[in-house]
Amino acid sequence: MLARRLIERKRDGGRIEPAEWRALIEAYAAGAVPDYQMAALLMAIYWRSLDRGETSALTDAMLHSGRTLVLDHLPAARVDKHSTGGVGDKVSLVLAPLVACLGVAVPMMSGRGLGHTGGTLDKLEAIPGFRTDLSLAVATRQLEALGCVLIGQTGEIAPADRKMYALRDATATVESIPLIAASIMSKKLAEGLTALVLDVKRGSGAFLPELDRGLRLAETMIRLGADRGCPTVALLTAMDRPLGRACGNALETEEAILALRGEGPPDLMTVTYALGAEMLVLGKAAPTHDAARRLMEGAISSGRAAEHFQRIIEAQGGNPGVVDDPAVLPQAAECEIFRANRRGFVAHVEPRAIGRGITALGGGRNRVDDRVDPSVGFVITARPGDWVEAGEPLATIFARDAAGVLAGRAALEEAILLADEAERPLPLVSHRVSEAGVAEYDSSGPAAATATIG
Amino acid sequence: MLARRLIERKRDGGRIEPAEWRALIEAYAAGAVPDYQMAALLMAIYWRSLDRGETSALTDAMLHSGRTLVLDHLPAARVDKHSTGGVGDKVSLVLAPLVACLGVAVPMMSGRGLGHTGGTLDKLEAIPGFRTDLSLAVATRQLEALGCVLIGQTGEIAPADRKMYALRDATATVESIPLIAASIMSKKLAEGLTALVLDVKRGSGAFLPELDRGLRLAETMIRLGADRGCPTVALLTAMDRPLGRACGNALETEEAILALRGEGPPDLMTVTYALGAEMLVLGKAAPTHDAARRLMEGAISSGRAAEHFQRIIEAQGGNPGVVDDPAVLPQAAECEIFRANRRGFVAHVEPRAIGRGITALGGGRNRVDDRVDPSVGFVITARPGDWVEAGEPLATIFARDAAGVLAGRAALEEAILLADEAERPLPLVSHRVSEAGVAEYDSSGPAAATATIG
Repeated sequence: MLARRLIERKRDGGRIEPAEWRALIEAYAAGAVPDYQMAALLMAIYWRSLDRGETSALTDAMLHSGRTLVLDHLPAARVDKHSTGGVGDKVSLVLAPLVACLGVAVPMMSGRGLGHTGGTLDKLEAIPGFRTDLSLAVATRQLEALGCVLIGQTGEIAPADRKMYALRDATATVESIPLIAASIMSKKLAEGLTALVLDVKRGSGAFLPELDRGLRLAETMIRLGADRGCPTVALLTAMDRPLGRACGNALETEEAILALRGEGPPDLMTVTYALGAEMLVLGKAAPTHDAARRLMEGAISSGRAAEHFQRIIEAQGGNPGVVDDPAVLPQAAECEIFRANRRGFVAHVEPRAIGRGITALGGGRNRVDDRVDPSVGFVITARPGDWVEAGEPLATIFARDAAGVLAGRAALEEAILLADEAERPLPLVSHRVSEAGVAEYDSSGPAAATATIG
Repeated sequence: MLARRLIERKRDGGRIEPAEWRALIEAYAAGAVPDYQMAALLMAIYWRSLDRGETSALTDAMLHSGRTLVLDHLPAARVDKHSTGGVGDKVSLVLAPLVACLGVAVPMMSGRGLGHTGGTLDKLEAIPGFRTDLSLAVATRQLEALGCVLIGQTGEIAPADRKMYALRDATATVESIPLIAASIMSKKLAEGLTALVLDVKRGSGAFLPELDRGLRLAETMIRLGADRGCPTVALLTAMDRPLGRACGNALETEEAILALRGEGPPDLMTVTYALGAEMLVLGKAAPTHDAARRLMEGAISSGRAAEHFQRIIEAQGGNPGVVDDPAVLPQAAECEIFRANRRGFVAHVEPRAIGRGITALGGGRNRVDDRVDPSVGFVITARPGDWVEAGEPLATIFARDAAGVLAGRAALEEAILLADEAERPLPLVSHRVSEAGVAEYDSSGPAAATATIG
C-alpha cells in the first residue's frame, strides 16, 4: 500500500518524505515493491520532478541499499572524476594514473558503453587480460598499494540504483535531472571519496545537450556532494564533436597511452589537464590550478604517469607491455581511409552518428548484454574548422570485414559535414560550477563565480 | 523496443496511432510487453491524456483482445445499463428483470465491489446458489430463453482490459477519463448490444465527484458508442448519499426484491425508472419516456417483473424462493439500532464512510481477492433534509458479532452528520447526455439538449 500512496502523491505534485524514500527503496531492493509500481513512480517523478530534499533523500536511500568503500585509513586524499558520457572520451584512462602518481588516490568505478556513448570498462578490457570485476576488498588493497584502482560498479554498490537504472532505460524515464543526479551520486558517494570532480558534457552528443540543463544537473550533484561533506566541482565540456581522434575501445586505449607518453591530441590534453587540476587541488596535492598543471606535465614528460599506468595494468591482470607497445591491443582486420568528397570547411563532426557507427561496426551496445568487439572504430583526423581539399583523408575506418567498412563509411558520411562556411565549435571547457556558483572558463582557467547556486 | 518508443512519445505529449495501439495491446495481452512498461505508459497517459482517436483505438484494441457476444440472431433489441459505481446502488437488480420482461434483452456483465463501492455480482451471489460465472455459450442460451442474463466479466471478454485494470489500481492511474472510458466501453461493446445506458454518478461518493469530470466521462463514452453503431445515453445521478436505504450485499438484494414487488424506496425507484425509460425507448419497446414509465409501473404492480426475476434466479442456480421470502438470504447474527445523539437536521450521509463501514463489518473488499460476508451492512432510514429528535432511530447495523456492531457504530457516527441547518442534496437525476448534447433533467424528464458534444 505504501508504494501506491507515494505514486498517487507524486502524481498530484506532492512531496515524499525522507523516511518514506528509505522504506520505498529498501522494499524495492528487496523485491517487495514490484517494478511496475516503481515504473509508474518514475514517470510521475519525470513529470513532477523532485525538490532538493527529496533528491537528497533518494540519493541516501540508494547509497545505503548497498556497501560503501571505507578508506579513512588511507593517508592520501581520495578524489574521483565522473563524466556524463560521450564519444571518444578516454579521459579517465589518462587521468587516473596521472593523478594517482602525484599522490591523490583515485578509487574509480566506471560503467560500460550503451547507445551512442562509450564506457571506460570496455576500453580497459581491450587490454589483454585486464580485469575490472574486483571485489571491494581486493580493490581496497590495490588502492593502498598503488593509489588507484579501475573497476566496475559491483553488485555490492548501490544495488537499488542498479535495478532502477535498468528500469528507467526500459520506461523512457532516464532524462530526469534529479534521477540522473541521485543515480550518479549514490554510486560516487559509495567510493569513500574526500572530493569529486564532474565532467558534464554539453552539445549534440551529450546526454543532456542543452547548456542550462547541464548546469542544473551540475548544481544538483554539487549540492548532493556538499551536503555529505564531499566537496564537488563540475566542468562543462564540449561534446558537439568527439574528444580526441580515436573512437572505439582499443583505439581509444591506444590514444590514452599515447597521451600518457606525451603524444596526446591537444583537445584531449586540455580537458584532461582541466579536470586533473581540479582533482589535485581538491586533493591538496597542488596549491593552485597552474601548479597542478605543471605537476601533470612533469609526470608525463618524465614517464612517471605512463609507468604508473603500467603498474595498475599489471596489478589488474592485464598485459603491461601495452604501454610500450600498443600493438598488443586487438587489431581490426580491415582498415580504409575515408576521404573528403568535396573541398570546404569541416563544419561539423556529429558524435551521435560516430557512436552509432561504432555500434554498427560491432564495437558498441544497443542492449546491456550485447558483446563488443574492441578492435573496431574510427580515427578521425578532421577537426571542425579545418579546411580540406577534395580527396584529402578525413578519417580511417577500422572494421572486422568488408561489410563493416561499408557501415563505417556510411556512418562517416552522415557524421562529417563539409560546407562552404565553418561553424564555431563549443569551447572545450566553458563553465566551472562549484559551491561558490557558476563561472565562465577560459584557457587560463576559471573566472570568479558569477552566479550562486540557488 | 515498440513499447519504449511509445512511452517516450506519450511522455512528450505526442500521439499513438491506431496500428500502434493494436500492436501494443496485443503484445501486452500476450505478455510480450511487461507490466512495468505498461505502468510507465499509464502514468504518461494520466499526465498527457488521450485524444478522441487514441481513446477510440485503445477501446477497439482492448475489445478485440478477447471474444464478443454475437447476438444478431435475437429478435429483441439488446440494451444494457452500466453504472460508474456507488454505495447502496442496487439498480441493476431491479432494472434487468424489469426491462427484460418488457421485451428488451439485457445481457448484463457486472463487476464486484472494491474499495468503498459495492458490486452487482456480490449482491446476486448473496442469493443461495446463484451462479454468475456462466460461459458465453450458456449465457447466450439463457438470453434466448429469458431475455436476460446476469454474469461477471469472463476471462474471454477483453482480457487486456482485465489485466490493465489491475495494473491501474496498483499504480494510481485509475482516475483518467480516457482510460476509464476505454475500459468500460471495451467491455460493454463486447456484449453485442444494440444500445447502452450509462449511469454516471456524481457527488462525494462517486468515483469522479465533480460534475464537469462526470460530464466529460459521459461524453467520451457516448462518442465511443456512437462511433461503433451503439447509441448510448448517460444520466448523471446523485451519489452524495447512498441510494435507497439498504447498504450491504444481502440487504440490498432484499431491497431490490421489495422494489420489484412495488415496495421500493422513492429515490431508488426514481433512478430505476429514469434509466429504465432510456433502455425501453432505445430498445424500441416504448415510444416515449412517459409510456415507458407506465409500462414499468404496470410490470411491477402486476407482479410480472418479480416473477421474471424469479425465473432468472432459477435459471442461474439460485433459490427462487427468495423473491417471495427474502428471509432465505443470509442473516446477520447481531443487529442494533443507531440513534440520533442530538436533535437537528440530517445534513449529510457520506457514502464513502458507509462504504468503508461495510468493509469494516466484513462485507466489502480492500483487495480484489478478499472474501465478503453478504449478511452485514446498514439500513439507513435517515435521509438528508429530515428533522430528527435526539434518540430517534437513524439506521440499523447488521453485524457478525459485537466487534462488528462497534465498527458499524463508528462508521455511522462518521457518516451521518446532524446539524442545525439542512444541506441541499444533489438532484437525484441532474443531467442527460446523448449524441445531441447535454440537457438538464427534471422530474418530468430531460429538457432539450443545451450543449453539443464537442
